[in-house]
Amino acid sequence: MPVPPTLLEPDLLAADPAGLADVGRLVTEITREAAGALRRRTGPLPAQTPRQLAALVDRQLPDGPIPRHGGGREAVLALARAYAAGTVDLADPRAAAHLQPPSLSVAAAADVLASVFNASVDTWDSGPYAVELERRLITALTDLAGYGPAAGGVLTPGGSASNLQALLIARDTALRPGRDVRAVGLSGLTVRPVLYCSELAHFSMARAAALLGLGEDAVRPVAADEHHRMRPEELDRALRTRAADELPIAVVATAGTTDYGSIDPMPQLAAIARDHGIRLHVDAAYGGGALFSARLRPLLDGIELADSITIDLHKTAWQPAAASALLLRDRAGFTTTTGLRVAYLNPEDDGEAGYDGLLGHSLQTTRRADALKVAATFLALGREGVGAMLDACHDLALHAARSVAAHPRLELTTEPVLTTVVFRYRPRTTTDPATVDAINGALRRRLLREGSALIGRTETEGAVQLKLTLLNPQARTSDIEEMLAAVDAAGAAEEEAHHV
Amino acid sequence: MPVPPTLLEPDLLAADPAGLADVGRLVTEITREAAGALRRRTGPLPAQTPRQLAALVDRQLPDGPIPRHGGGREAVLALARAYAAGTVDLADPRAAAHLQPPSLSVAAAADVLASVFNASVDTWDSGPYAVELERRLITALTDLAGYGPAAGGVLTPGGSASNLQALLIARDTALRPGRDVRAVGLSGLTVRPVLYCSELAHFSMARAAALLGLGEDAVRPVAADEHHRMRPEELDRALRTRAADELPIAVVATAGTTDYGSIDPMPQLAAIARDHGIRLHVDAAYGGGALFSARLRPLLDGIELADSITIDLHKTAWQPAAASALLLRDRAGFTTTTGLRVAYLNPEDDGEAGYDGLLGHSLQTTRRADALKVAATFLALGREGVGAMLDACHDLALHAARSVAAHPRLELTTEPVLTTVVFRYRPRTTTDPATVDAINGALRRRLLREGSALIGRTETEGAVQLKLTLLNPQARTSDIEEMLAAVDAAGAAEEEAHHV
Repeated sequence: MPVPPTLLEPDLLAADPAGLADVGRLVTEITREAAGALRRRTGPLPAQTPRQLAALVDRQLPDGPIPRHGGGREAVLALARAYAAGTVDLADPRAAAHLQPPSLSVAAAADVLASVFNASVDTWDSGPYAVELERRLITALTDLAGYGPAAGGVLTPGGSASNLQALLIARDTALRPGRDVRAVGLSGLTVRPVLYCSELAHFSMARAAALLGLGEDAVRPVAADEHHRMRPEELDRALRTRAADELPIAVVATAGTTDYGSIDPMPQLAAIARDHGIRLHVDAAYGGGALFSARLRPLLDGIELADSITIDLHKTAWQPAAASALLLRDRAGFTTTTGLRVAYLNPEDDGEAGYDGLLGHSLQTTRRADALKVAATFLALGREGVGAMLDACHDLALHAARSVAAHPRLELTTEPVLTTVVFRYRPRTTTDPATVDAINGALRRRLLREGSALIGRTETEGAVQLKLTLLNPQARTSDIEEMLAAVDAAGAAEEEAHHV
Repeated sequence: MPVPPTLLEPDLLAADPAGLADVGRLVTEITREAAGALRRRTGPLPAQTPRQLAALVDRQLPDGPIPRHGGGREAVLALARAYAAGTVDLADPRAAAHLQPPSLSVAAAADVLASVFNASVDTWDSGPYAVELERRLITALTDLAGYGPAAGGVLTPGGSASNLQALLIARDTALRPGRDVRAVGLSGLTVRPVLYCSELAHFSMARAAALLGLGEDAVRPVAADEHHRMRPEELDRALRTRAADELPIAVVATAGTTDYGSIDPMPQLAAIARDHGIRLHVDAAYGGGALFSARLRPLLDGIELADSITIDLHKTAWQPAAASALLLRDRAGFTTTTGLRVAYLNPEDDGEAGYDGLLGHSLQTTRRADALKVAATFLALGREGVGAMLDACHDLALHAARSVAAHPRLELTTEPVLTTVVFRYRPRTTTDPATVDAINGALRRRLLREGSALIGRTETEGAVQLKLTLLNPQARTSDIEEMLAAVDAAGAAEEEAHHV
């Protein structure tokens, strides 16, 4: 039974000349519909509550997203309109909540090639060009990081995945002298593997530790200084005073904490890790973008001393998610953990003949050609272009910090390092900590509900903080002022609502 | 310092009306260039060796993929031409190597919305519409699987990731009575967690076991019958005769083995797992597409008895990678492993106000809106449309099996179940097993080198096998004949080359 002809309009498969033409036409229509919906918007989010959105989506998809019968092209365009009307608009200069950049046109467009051809980089013959492209992208990144010719790496689906794989390699490398963890696991282990990171390190460390069977308790937080950087002397002390049955597998330095953008002192931490014979991983998911900026690159001095590095190109290289990279100073690190031969994917005689993909570097099997969008971006804009975008966002953060500091009702928590600004609304009428917290949390939700400004929040020492994560290089200082004014107004409204 | 104006041409950011128009134009140009390159091709792969490709890419990217200065739009179009000329063309009906489908035009086009808006489903305010869409997609899938209202699930970056998370949940659920594994890990554990699956189960089980700290040895392969299905009586025996210190955490049934498409007897395996009080996971990465086909759905009878299910929509729903789903019969399963609150992402007061994303269901943090392309596909084609595609590929497999069986130089290894056909080339002049293996391996590489046909290979009981993985619903029976003729000719040429 051949596929019903009705399915052939539009051309069913993307990767033939007619299909490609159809993808071009369909994307043109989709983006036109989306642009129309976007023009009717007034802010980074539609003005609505979560409950209102859920009811709207139910009305828009009465048979759900997997109906028995299809609605053809019009159903797709309706989805595009609804999506553009209802999603966050990260290109709105008043969107400043998360480490989630507005994506670059060139990256979004080039990513279509990954979708259309659906290459997979696990084996050579499922994506030969994509395999070669990723190899060169990794080399370019390891060169920028200051690694030598033994370096390697792999693209992963996110910073959490890159950190997980780095800790997996650390776990298995540290335990290998005693056992082949990959084969026999951790049961019956009499030592307790532990790892050290800043108290401000990303929560993915704890999650990775749980996943790897080490337990969240294996993560030993080290105190940070007043600039939110791990204190080397505290790390050294923790290592020297550890229990006899604790086996350190890694020190994790953060280059760009999520909230403060603070960067742990890598040269000092590397020296301590080396003294104790422990691997150093650098989580530069956020700060890694400084590799592209002449101005900010010095912040990453010492990163080349790390054994592995996480860098998220879907953060400070303005890629659509996902485009994270795990870089290794010595690519031999892959062999103990992910290196493998599979009869149906990469048998040995094929490997000897040069037909090898990237399966052995990855925890994934099928893996999208994410290197394409990244390569297209840098080929179009150059490292200097991307670096200039980061510099522009850094300038915005410096400006925002000054504005906050000068504002009577706002309080700057700390000076910015990269592109985040952490601050607090200071109510006119109360200093009660719980009430101040409640007002700060509620004023942010009010802004979400009104759809007028999308700002972040976090907590420091138990207190609710507000946060601007500035990743729109086209935003102006007037946009910053507008957001701060919106915070002020929402704060006043919440003070009233809280009857204080 | 604002971003240099040169960067604003083309419009820098995708998600504003001008940027969207530019994405539409750029995609039109990219797909036009790609179509031109594709028209000049003669097969699913370019005729070249891995070494020739590597040299070509070096010439095409003299400064690598991250040059200092950008080349603008023309550099992107050059990349599109090179990529379309050098990648696999899965829409060519002679591409039949891997479980990697040609992607649908509608899915490839709709995925642009994910790239353009760059929503992330981890928090409500990083992608509210995408969050709602994924929730409904998961519900639609769990309904189709026969799960009840307590069911839940999550999209993941691939079948390996879905299986990993399923085994993580199994590990922590099984061990929880004794310890909070998430907190304290596996060190000092006196039992050895083990899991049971078919000897033909996917290698991602072993890799997941290693990652989770159980070790690859924790995977206990159970013998399969002559139809490549796990033998229930062997599973039962393995469970009854296990060592006293072994703690079974899961039985894994495979619904669609990679090579044979064989489907383990889920009702019987579920009964045994229930008797022993163990979780059942079904890896339906491949076979899950039968949920959409009235004809093939009966093959999945009993899948609703599983505690969790992996299904890869980037296999038998023709999505661009990645679009895997992990479905849980009881979504409470997430709480012990991935459920978490993070101050900067989903603080409790926001959650109480309804502002909750999907962070707690996932091992990822930033997570692309992969539900969009899937929803667009089903909204356009309907379940029936996608099911018809699977039926068409199933028909092709049945035809191919008949042709192989009737061919004097080819030997059918087993009858197809889904859309794969495993067979062997039988040399005229030798029956020496090592030589026959070498010829089969070499003839496939010859086809790759010539670029004329892209077929798969695997091994059964130590012997090299060839494989057609038929996922092009527009392929004709004449394409099958052409591929088999190419195998025959390449086999003859290799016999000559091997001097037999």
